[in-house]
Amino acid sequence: MREVIEIGLGRNAQRGYHLPDVAIVPSRRTRDVDDVSTAWQLDAYPFEIPCVAHPSDATMSPATAVALGQLGGLGVLNAEGLWTRYEDPSKVLAELADLDEESPATRRLQEAYTEPILPELIGQRIAELRDGGVTVAVRVSPQHTLTLAPVILDAGVDILVIQGTIVSAEHVSTTDEPLNLKEFIADLDVPVVVGGCTSYQTALHLMRTGAAGVIVGVGADDWATTDAVLGIRVPMATAIADAAAARRDYLDETGGRYVHLIADGGIQTSGDIARALGCGADAVMLGEPLSLAVGAPGGGAWWHSAASHPKLPRGAFGAAQASQGTLEEILYGPADQPDGTLNLFGGLKRAMAKCGYRDLKEFQKVGLVLDS
Amino acid sequence: MREVIEIGLGRNAQRGYHLPDVAIVPSRRTRDVDDVSTAWQLDAYPFEIPCVAHPSDATMSPATAVALGQLGGLGVLNAEGLWTRYEDPSKVLAELADLDEESPATRRLQEAYTEPILPELIGQRIAELRDGGVTVAVRVSPQHTLTLAPVILDAGVDILVIQGTIVSAEHVSTTDEPLNLKEFIADLDVPVVVGGCTSYQTALHLMRTGAAGVIVGVGADDWATTDAVLGIRVPMATAIADAAAARRDYLDETGGRYVHLIADGGIQTSGDIARALGCGADAVMLGEPLSLAVGAPGGGAWWHSAASHPKLPRGAFGAAQASQGTLEEILYGPADQPDGTLNLFGGLKRAMAKCGYRDLKEFQKVGLVLDS
Amino acid sequence: MREVIEIGLGRNAQRGYHLPDVAIVPSRRTRDVDDVSTAWQLDAYPFEIPCVAHPSDATMSPATAVALGQLGGLGVLNAEGLWTRYEDPSKVLAELADLDEESPATRRLQEAYTEPILPELIGQRIAELRDGGVTVAVRVSPQHTLTLAPVILDAGVDILVIQGTIVSAEHVSTTDEPLNLKEFIADLDVPVVVGGCTSYQTALHLMRTGAAGVIVGVGADDWATTDAVLGIRVPMATAIADAAAARRDYLDETGGRYVHLIADGGIQTSGDIARALGCGADAVMLGEPLSLAVGAPGGGAWWHSAASHPKLPRGAFGAAQASQGTLEEILYGPADQPDGTLNLFGGLKRAMAKCGYRDLKEFQKVGLVLDS
Amino acid sequence: MREVIEIGLGRNAQRGYHLPDVAIVPSRRTRDVDDVSTAWQLDAYPFEIPCVAHPSDATMSPATAVALGQLGGLGVLNAEGLWTRYEDPSKVLAELADLDEESPATRRLQEAYTEPILPELIGQRIAELRDGGVTVAVRVSPQHTLTLAPVILDAGVDILVIQGTIVSAEHVSTTDEPLNLKEFIADLDVPVVVGGCTSYQTALHLMRTGAAGVIVGVGADDWATTDAVLGIRVPMATAIADAAAARRDYLDETGGRYVHLIADGGIQTSGDIARALGCGADAVMLGEPLSLAVGAPGGGAWWHSAASHPKLPRGAFGAAQASQGTLEEILYGPADQPDGTLNLFGGLKRAMAKCGYRDLKEFQKVGLVLDS
Repeated sequence: MREVIEIGLGRNAQRGYHLPDVAIVPSRRTRDVDDVSTAWQLDAYPFEIPCVAHPSDATMSPATAVALGQLGGLGVLNAEGLWTRYEDPSKVLAELADLDEESPATRRLQEAYTEPILPELIGQRIAELRDGGVTVAVRVSPQHTLTLAPVILDAGVDILVIQGTIVSAEHVSTTDEPLNLKEFIADLDVPVVVGGCTSYQTALHLMRTGAAGVIVGVGADDWATTDAVLGIRVPMATAIADAAAARRDYLDETGGRYVHLIADGGIQTSGDIARALGCGADAVMLGEPLSLAVGAPGGGAWWHSAASHPKLPRGAFGAAQASQGTLEEILYGPADQPDGTLNLFGGLKRAMAKCGYRDLKEFQKVGLVLDS
Repeated sequence: MREVIEIGLGRNAQRGYHLPDVAIVPSRRTRDVDDVSTAWQLDAYPFEIPCVAHPSDATMSPATAVALGQLGGLGVLNAEGLWTRYEDPSKVLAELADLDEESPATRRLQEAYTEPILPELIGQRIAELRDGGVTVAVRVSPQHTLTLAPVILDAGVDILVIQGTIVSAEHVSTTDEPLNLKEFIADLDVPVVVGGCTSYQTALHLMRTGAAGVIVGVGADDWATTDAVLGIRVPMATAIADAAAARRDYLDETGGRYVHLIADGGIQTSGDIARALGCGADAVMLGEPLSLAVGAPGGGAWWHSAASHPKLPRGAFGAAQASQGTLEEILYGPADQPDGTLNLFGGLKRAMAKCGYRDLKEFQKVGLVLDS
Repeated sequence: MREVIEIGLGRNAQRGYHLPDVAIVPSRRTRDVDDVSTAWQLDAYPFEIPCVAHPSDATMSPATAVALGQLGGLGVLNAEGLWTRYEDPSKVLAELADLDEESPATRRLQEAYTEPILPELIGQRIAELRDGGVTVAVRVSPQHTLTLAPVILDAGVDILVIQGTIVSAEHVSTTDEPLNLKEFIADLDVPVVVGGCTSYQTALHLMRTGAAGVIVGVGADDWATTDAVLGIRVPMATAIADAAAARRDYLDETGGRYVHLIADGGIQTSGDIARALGCGADAVMLGEPLSLAVGAPGGGAWWHSAASHPKLPRGAFGAAQASQGTLEEILYGPADQPDGTLNLFGGLKRAMAKCGYRDLKEFQKVGLVLDS
Repeated sequence: MREVIEIGLGRNAQRGYHLPDVAIVPSRRTRDVDDVSTAWQLDAYPFEIPCVAHPSDATMSPATAVALGQLGGLGVLNAEGLWTRYEDPSKVLAELADLDEESPATRRLQEAYTEPILPELIGQRIAELRDGGVTVAVRVSPQHTLTLAPVILDAGVDILVIQGTIVSAEHVSTTDEPLNLKEFIADLDVPVVVGGCTSYQTALHLMRTGAAGVIVGVGADDWATTDAVLGIRVPMATAIADAAAARRDYLDETGGRYVHLIADGGIQTSGDIARALGCGADAVMLGEPLSLAVGAPGGGAWWHSAASHPKLPRGAFGAAQASQGTLEEILYGPADQPDGTLNLFGGLKRAMAKCGYRDLKEFQKVGLVLDS
């Protein structure tokens, strides 16, 4: 029974569950790990692992986006990040890698992002991605979609990611003509992934815009401060399951349009990936876990896209940590640490095998247990 | 369904929720942040932000009360604090700013407040407030209201704040003639704010005294020790929602008298402000968050009014911290830290925008989610 | 509704609440603190405060038991402690006061208690208590009651305390003739306090033995390890409320015999005392809080009676802390610390006043709120 | 009522309880500790204490397995551990004992286990166990059962333990002929213990394979990382109670075949043992608690069998701690520490006595209380 709690007289709140609240439950069958598939497909693009990169400059450069694509995932470059503000961002990246976590780090981040976005650099970066021979995905914010999308589309992307902390299908503005997602997407030739969102209703409305994928969550991790700054804290297990219900209902109302859910928030380990998919996600968006790869642009440092907001930063700067291994080791192992941060998709595969599932779609039905 | 729990045979307790237990939920609409208003009005006095200062000497001097008023909030000076005990409290304030958190700090606080209250200083301080050209609010305790109110009123305040840890509409005493709030308020020309209270019933009774505003909560923050000393720990989300139900019922029984709720307790960040208003408060009372402003009278130190009680102190002394920014930066940003303690009302505005609300009254209906 | 949870198929557990889970709730009335009474009476013996000492050698010597009696509480000397094993225990007490918390402390405690109990010393100690002119209470374990009680009774006590970790009205033994509490108490002229117990049923059965008072709980505090060693962890709020139901039912079945409940466990602060009484206790048993008084026999160190068990110690040794004040200051203030450990009964009085109650019996009906 | 929670629309999770969530409840009777029996019997093999060793090389050598048997428990040697890979593993064990907890420890563990398993050493180790005159039990993984079991059985074991993280009665493989447990066990002369499992259904299916004992849990302790790596976290109180329901149902469907449950996970103290048995287990599997015995092969270090997995280690290496006492002291005391890690079965006995129970089977019905 869905829990609605009366927190005060006549005032209700819905109970929500976070990913660490749940665990997956092995059932009566087990399976060979080599018989398990983690393959996934978004629109026409197949992937070996359900891994989408969170478009932070700390992890995504043209080079690492290509590397991730070559390893079977989907890299996403931020069209409003450092790579489109600086001809060569390596100097500013190196400087950020040297910062510690004290207050000036946020101020330095804010400064780094005051440089204007140069449209010509967007084209150049997309060309670099294309040259890598992988599926090309670029992120743009809802506010800048109308301005930047033409440039991005001209440069030729495969997937457009329209992502803000919270995106709705109905943005109201008294000053600007707001982005009408439905019309915008209808006019496009490329599939669009849009989000984040946090509820059944918003997910359903975003699906109705024609999006191929919907991002669930606001990307909150240990460094995010959305809760402290905005009072918004997304219980990801519930948000994913609610969005999965929207996917089911939308599938029914359209007679078969399947919109993919990409969970973005609270995912640090292979166990978390198993939890998110077990709750109903089709793929996960990984941020900080990829920052520990050898060659990550941030040199081991981590920051959220919202961490550099000029007036209201909503993410703490994570000072550089030693790299844990190559990107391949992080994704596929072998792991020489037992904490679930290496061999992320080997861990997922084994979790699926221990629970007797063969593919991701089946695994969305895995049993769940909830801590008291 | 309201949760009443049988904690033992035949003994019930009501489940209560704290502000950190809840989060606000974006809905299907978003809005431009510039279209959002945080305006608020108490009786005839309009404010740009729903911010009332907790009347601690650590944050409220005549000068800072004026500054807060000029920035759109409501400063409140304690008529029983250091400013009415010392001609020039700057020396004692400087000394307090130098104390660390060890035990003698409380003893020194207790000593500082043994100086008698000088009625002539009350008049003088109020004159200083008036000269600032802002709405003038002064706090007096229920015990001293009958004695001090005449002096205060003569000096000309706009709003009288009668505040104790717990104030009821029915104080029983065998020795003194207790303050009859209803009669007292009926005889006054100025609006009265009264509290704290913690339940539907007390809130309703206080509304029936004719108060223009009711304070919900006992001002408990990380430094308060009301729980350890008295066993009283107010679940603020529940207390606010219950008081909001009282406000609704009182509005109905009076055919339209709207009493404002000021939440006092557990509010440290912009996220907490969003939570408190989302639970039904009309404004928040801020204590420690204002102590970090440049020029705060306590020089960065923080103490609760109850922390200096001569026999039963109920708040720990918070040793001086470095100031985080000007009062304006604390209220309106820009923030150069991501922890929710700067740009408090910019954060609120953005939270409202992300949830699609335009003004505070609408925002009281925002969806809430409760952690498991 | 009482919560019975099916933790696994066909296996139930009852939900229990600890004292920190609850808080007391002010109601619509407040009261002058000077109009509040904390008086309490056990059998023919009146006390100013509902304070019974836990019979640990760390706090109870003949001298401190007398001092506590003179201050309005009830001191209890352990007839099986150091004072009846050593002619002059001051040397061993001084040595214990010097120990730190590392492992040898328990071993040293164990050694100290290997000295045999000397019956003549029991008589001598009781004489010292009598000379103090206070109500004389002595503790004996159920195992040694048949052997030691004659000596104790001959020496003339006012109240006999039969206390073990868990005492039942029906002890089964295949080797010894077990203590039949009912017959034993029926033959006595002095009132008996017996416990600890943890449930409605055991409390009721102990009441039916004719006891004047029943101890609820196993005296668990931060130093107790009953949970780790025995798997027994008493949710005190529930245990007290359940025992209060037993008191009510026993009152009914006897047509008016009121058995007093003494809560022993989890009580560190004045707030905890308010919670325990609010849940239905008539008095509280204080252990460690009294160890911080100037002149405590343990010199600031604290150990539970069960901490010296020769084969299965169930309490950690708490190394000596600086004294916080005189016994009088601990009980009645003034407090110069805000943490609830000083002015314990002044804090209780103020809690009662803030909730509008006049005496302890009324206060047992105070509203309770439960954290989520 | 069993709690099924709808964590999101149409998505359920079952509430599960961990051992620390529960405590045992004394009832109306108490009993002499000397009248309590902890005896237990598996198939034809009687044991004085319900203690089975977790087959980690850190605690189980041929010598310590014999020592545990002589003290009344059941030692289990890992047929795939260091003792069957090295003629003399003492050097590698000594080296592991010197490692600290940093990352290379896992890498060194992984290396140590790359040596091949030598079948002739299996025979030799079993002979050493036989020479000790105790019940001989050897552990093999499900993957290697078909290969290694002939060698093991030829060498003459009393009990075969087939143990993996998760074992099901229905393993599916497209490449290898999977182990058919039911047929395998039917053909054997020796009783088989099999597991771990985590649910009613898997436990029941494993019972139907003909196993004499079923291991409940995945052996998770403070060092295990199954949750982080696989997303699998077993609420042991619930898992044990569910498996006990399977035992009951299987007893009914077979008209009297009683399968023993061995709880493996979350058991560190005598209190935990009491909890696990109180939830319905017949015996407990102890890992890390035995690593603190004088003469433990790991020299005080602790590692889980899964901690050395070559690609996906699932347990942290616990660097060597000082031994707490002899194996006898750990099992039977006397304890000179109060933390529940010494005198494990003396503590259990006393817990049973305090609750009035005489033997383990009765004690499975002890009252349970659940924290809020």
